[in-house]
Order: sequence, then structure tokens, then C-alpha cells
Amino acid sequence: MQPDSPKYTLSKERFEAFSDGVFAIAITLLALEIHLPAGLSKFSANAAKTAALLQLWPQYLVYVASFATIGIMWLNHHALFRYCKRITHGIVIANLFLLMVISFLPFSTAELGQFGITRPAVVYYGLVLILIAFGYLFVHQQVLAAENLPRRLTTWNIVGLSLYPLATLLGYFVPLAGIFGFVALALFYMLPRNVASIVLKS
Amino acid sequence: MQPDSPKYTLSKERFEAFSDGVFAIAITLLALEIHLPAGLSKFSANAAKTAALLQLWPQYLVYVASFATIGIMWLNHHALFRYCKRITHGIVIANLFLLMVISFLPFSTAELGQFGITRPAVVYYGLVLILIAFGYLFVHQQVLAAENLPRRLTTWNIVGLSLYPLATLLGYFVPLAGIFGFVALALFYMLPRNVASIVLKS
Amino acid sequence: MQPDSPKYTLSKERFEAFSDGVFAIAITLLALEIHLPAGLSKFSANAAKTAALLQLWPQYLVYVASFATIGIMWLNHHALFRYCKRITHGIVIANLFLLMVISFLPFSTAELGQFGITRPAVVYYGLVLILIAFGYLFVHQQVLAAENLPRRLTTWNIVGLSLYPLATLLGYFVPLAGIFGFVALALFYMLPRNVASIVLKS
Amino acid sequence: MQPDSPKYTLSKERFEAFSDGVFAIAITLLALEIHLPAGLSKFSANAAKTAALLQLWPQYLVYVASFATIGIMWLNHHALFRYCKRITHGIVIANLFLLMVISFLPFSTAELGQFGITRPAVVYYGLVLILIAFGYLFVHQQVLAAENLPRRLTTWNIVGLSLYPLATLLGYFVPLAGIFGFVALALFYMLPRNVASIVLKS
Repeated sequence: MQPDSPKYTLSKERFEAFSDGVFAIAITLLALEIHLPAGLSKFSANAAKTAALLQLWPQYLVYVASFATIGIMWLNHHALFRYCKRITHGIVIANLFLLMVISFLPFSTAELGQFGITRPAVVYYGLVLILIAFGYLFVHQQVLAAENLPRRLTTWNIVGLSLYPLATLLGYFVPLAGIFGFVALALFYMLPRNVASIVLKS
Repeated sequence: MQPDSPKYTLSKERFEAFSDGVFAIAITLLALEIHLPAGLSKFSANAAKTAALLQLWPQYLVYVASFATIGIMWLNHHALFRYCKRITHGIVIANLFLLMVISFLPFSTAELGQFGITRPAVVYYGLVLILIAFGYLFVHQQVLAAENLPRRLTTWNIVGLSLYPLATLLGYFVPLAGIFGFVALALFYMLPRNVASIVLKS
Repeated sequence: MQPDSPKYTLSKERFEAFSDGVFAIAITLLALEIHLPAGLSKFSANAAKTAALLQLWPQYLVYVASFATIGIMWLNHHALFRYCKRITHGIVIANLFLLMVISFLPFSTAELGQFGITRPAVVYYGLVLILIAFGYLFVHQQVLAAENLPRRLTTWNIVGLSLYPLATLLGYFVPLAGIFGFVALALFYMLPRNVASIVLKS
Repeated sequence: MQPDSPKYTLSKERFEAFSDGVFAIAITLLALEIHLPAGLSKFSANAAKTAALLQLWPQYLVYVASFATIGIMWLNHHALFRYCKRITHGIVIANLFLLMVISFLPFSTAELGQFGITRPAVVYYGLVLILIAFGYLFVHQQVLAAENLPRRLTTWNIVGLSLYPLATLLGYFVPLAGIFGFVALALFYMLPRNVASIVLKS
């Protein structure tokens, strides 16, 4: 963009501290978006309270899906930067985009809670996850560039960028199946082999 | 699970920074869940305002119980990892589960505020505390494994895993007594002897 | 309390990181508690919107008072621990109490917003500030003990513990004057001489 | 102010950790202020849900503007302190002011969401951005003083302090154009040449 601009690098410590902060806050805010029916109060019947707590199950499920997604993104981010020595301007900008879409996850979790596990809500949630997958791809590419490695799509990138749209498509037809797909994807990425393969390739 | 997966370890600094972040946020969000009656405004009578502030006492009590619980979990987490040298994949996954249930505490605190100190609300709150005790157990076991120590239940684990269900049972019959039980448990774990025994055993 | 308990100390890094996290979160949550009148929407007249933004001035004032209070507490905390070498169990417990009352400040700020700058609201807010002053005193005493210095009340402690009740009393009679008193106290503690005197005495 | 006050400096680590915490929290809270119409629930028609999600576009735009603004402020803060060796009292106070106005951005983002992209809302938002530009100027001046460099307005300062009022003025006449102006300014500051010039001058 500006080939003549002077070179500068950033402190890896503050870069990681800021990123860890955003990951930690976004993951902790998720539970703030679960709400009990406004009509119930301390004077309601115990049976009504118990029923309300049980009927929140879709929100518990979405909470787990979102928590696992941010958790795995943090783990991958961590693995990616463990062996990255230089924080370039490109990494910072790509990382800001990634953090912007991750910070959006509490809203899309709230949206699923309010609109229920229905077609528009699940597709919207899936689109946010696809944006997160792209954000991670951008950061990954910038890290490869910073380390003077060839920019290429790893198998892992291609798998991720295909499976999230697929799970979203599934959610278009069978909303609940889409949510289970998102949970399954997060758990899949948590397998040690998959995290290790990121570490080895970056 | 995947015995042939390449070994990798994680940076203890970022692991602790992320965990500390979640503990700090969850503990600070607790007060966000205390609400004044929506019907009162700046134009209400002073006596009504004073009454509303005093009638919040159950929420102040639950605030203290939740704050003390997260505080002691942070202290134990800290003590546990002070002498743990390697952060393995198993520790990270168990820790994500622990953080997931701790991040849920602001919601269950809000639930107690909205539903009052009544049977379903206290039992629900107790169930979340039991999940937290299990989460801590998982992390503890993974730390023992990482340090090549035999996986065993310490007296401390057995006591914790028995007392939280007991206090929850108490809360089933006498809700307010259950809450006092939860506060007492948190204070009990704060005694220096108990924290020290964790340090010495891990 | 338990003189035979084995001695242990804690990592100063995690202690400070956790405390800084709570200070940073509590200070940033303050603005979340400012709310526009629910009756206005994007379809309201521009004049009504402008009036609503101007009529929030008491909340802006309280925001500044609370922000300055947490800011100065952080600064003093920082100054106190700059020269404290050992984090004992007593310090951790006193610090948890301090953080518990500081985390309560967003609620009492919200309370002032909802109830207006009126007698019960300002007195309540003042009581929380007095609790914070006590929390800070507890931490200070524990730091003196940890450094084997005699536990004594410094002039600074006595001044702080007298002025907050005085400003609260003032707020009982003239609510707005109480708020200005709280702002003035925070600014007074921000003077370099006062921060420096903490550094030199601890 | 108090020329005879004893000199003290602060730990750069805690100063940066606290600042990074506030930046990270403020940026992550932005999404909490996006709200779906309260009238819709899980039982609403899918078409109504889709329409509601699409009609939030002004809030998505403001989210991007606010996120980019805090992101660039963090990046500049980072660049400024990378080469600053001493944290003086003046820096801490100026920095608290900067953090106070940055923490206000989630509220002004919420205000834009509730009041829509209309004249009073955009001007208010612009005034907050101008305060942020002044806050950054104060911090910059204090850093120059701490490093014994002459206090002067850099070209960069003058440009920033002129363009934010200009974009606000634009927003007074054409609200939507004002918002695009704020986004454009944030992106402009993200260009590597501009960040580098801060690094080289401080």
C-alpha cells in the first residue's frame, strides 16, 4: 500500500495482552445475554420458575457453542503466535478485524436467544462464524508473510472455510442441526492433533 | 484420545493472563446484575427510595456469596498453577470448562435476584456451584497428570464435592440457609491452612 | 488465625494482573449504566433528543466522580504495591474485600442515575465510598504487616477516613454538594504530593 | 503544580496493563449496545426477524466506526509508549482522562443506536470523538515533557484536531456523511505511514 513507509514493529507483549483481553471479555459477556422471562418475579410460583429455568435449554446450548468457539479461537491464536517473532502492521490490522467479529459473537448469541433456534437466527449466527473463520485466515496469512513463509491456504484453512458454510446451510434447513454442527466444529478443532498441526505449520 | 498426536505445550503466561481475565471479568460483572425496581425514578419519594435500597438485602447477600466463590476459585487456581511447570492440552480443555461454568455465575446470581431466595432459585444456584467444583476437580486432575503425579482425589476434593451438594440439599429445604452455607464454604476455603494445603499438594 | 498453618506466598504478577483487571473492568462498566429515556427513539423530534442528552448532566457528573474515584484507587494501589515485595494471605483477603466494594461502584453509580441526586441516593453512594476507604485501609495495614513495619494509621488514612463521611454528611443535607465533595476528594488524592507520600511511606 | 513534591515514577508494566484492559473492555462492550426490537420474540414470523436483522445496518456501521476508533487509539497509544521510558504523574493523569472519554464511547454508540443517524445523535458522537482527540493530545504532550522533548503540536496533532470537528460539522448537515467521515478518519490513521510517523516522532 505504502511501499516507502518506514518499517516499525510492535511489542508482542501488548499485542497479546490486548488480544487476550478481548477474547476473555467476549467469552465472559456471553452469559450476560441469557435472560429469564421478564414476566416472572420472586412472587411467581415455584413451578413456573422451575419451568422457566428448564425452558432456557436452547440458550444453554448456544452458550456452550459460543463459549467453545471463542475458546478454540483463543487457543489457535495462542498457538499461531507462540512461534511468531515479529508483529507487523498487517498482523495488527488483520487481528483487529478478527477481534471485531469475535466481539460480535455475544450479540449474535443474544439474537439467537431472543429469536429462538429458527432459520433466520441460525443463519445469521452462522454468517458471523464464517466472518470469524475469514478473520482467522487473514491473521494466519499475515503471520506467514511476517515470517517470510509463502502465503498459502493450509488444508486446515480450507477445511474450516468449507465446514462453517456447510453447517450454516444445514442450519438453513434444520436450525437445531446447524447449532449442533457449530458445537461439533468447535470440539473438532479442540482435538490435540488439530491444535498441534497449527503449531507445527506456523 | 489421539496417542500419536505430536506433543506441544502452551505459554503459561498467556494461559494465566486469559484465565485471570475471565476471573476478573466474571467477578466484576456480578454487580451489573443487581437492579433497582423499574417503577422507581428520581421523582419517587425519598422514603420509597430508601426502602428499595434496603429491600435489596438478599441481592447483597448473594453478591457477597458469588464474589467470595469466584475469589476463592481464583486463589486456588493461582495456588495450583504456581508450581505447575507445563501447560498441557488436557489442562487447557479442563480449564476452558472451569471458566465456562464460572462465567455462568453472573447469570445464576441474576437469576437469584429475579426469583428471590426461593427453592428453585437456590437449587439452580447450587447446581452451578457443583459444576464449578467439578470443573476445578478436572483441572486439578490434569495438573497432576501433567506433573506425572498419580491421579487421585485429595481429601480436599472429596470435602468440596460433598459439601456443595450438601449445602444445595439444605437450600432445597431452607433456601436462606443454603445461601449462608455457600458463603460459609467460600470463607472456609479462604482460611490460610486450606489454601496452603493446595499449594503443598500440587 | 491459624498460627500453625504452613507459610506460602503468592505471585505478585498474577495478584497485580487480577487487581488491574478488576479496576479496569469496573471503571469501564461505569458508562454502561448511563441510560437515555426509554420513551425516545429514532423517530423522536431532534429537539427532544438534544434536551434528553443535556438533561443527563447529573449522570455525566456522577460518571466523572466514579471514574476519578476508581482511577485514584488504582493509582494508590499501584503506588502501594510498587515497593511491597511479598504478597501474603492477609493481603489477598483484604484485597478481595477492596475489589468487592470497588466492583460495587457501577451499581451505586446506576442507582444515582435512576434515583437522581437526592438524599437517599447520595448517602448510599457515600456509604459505598466509605467502604472503599476502609477496604483500602485494610490492604494498607496488611502490606505494613507483610513488610514487618508497625501497623499504624498514617495521617493520610485518618484524613481519608474522616473526609468521606464528612462529604456524605454534606450530601445528606445538600445532595449536589455531596457529589462535588466526592469529586474534590478524588482530585485531591490525585495531586502528585499525595501519591508520592504514599510511595514514600510504604 | 507542586514543584516541591518528591519525584516518583510508576511501573510501565502496570500502566500499560491497566490501559490495555480499559481499551479491550471498551472495544468489546460496543456490541453489547446493539439491541433487537423488543417487540420481536421467538414466536415472530421469520420474515419479521430477517427484516429486523437487516434494518440494524446503521448500528452495524456505527459499531465498525467505534471499533475502528478504539482500535486505532490503542495502536497509537501502543506506538507512543513503545519508546517512552518514564511514566510520570502527568502522564498518568492525562491517560486517565483519555481512558475516561474512551470508556464513554460505548454509551455514545448506544445513543446513536437509539436515536438513529440523526443530527443531534451524530453531533454528540462527534463531540465525544473530539474529546478523545484532545485526550490523546494531552497524553502526547505529557510524554514529550517526560522525555524532555519540547512540547509542540505535531502536524499529526493539528490534522487530527481539525478533521474531527470538520467531520462533526459535516454530520450536522448530513448525518450519514458524518459517520462515514469518522470511519474514514479511523482508517486513515491506520495506514502504516501514519502509525510509523508517530513512532518516529516520540
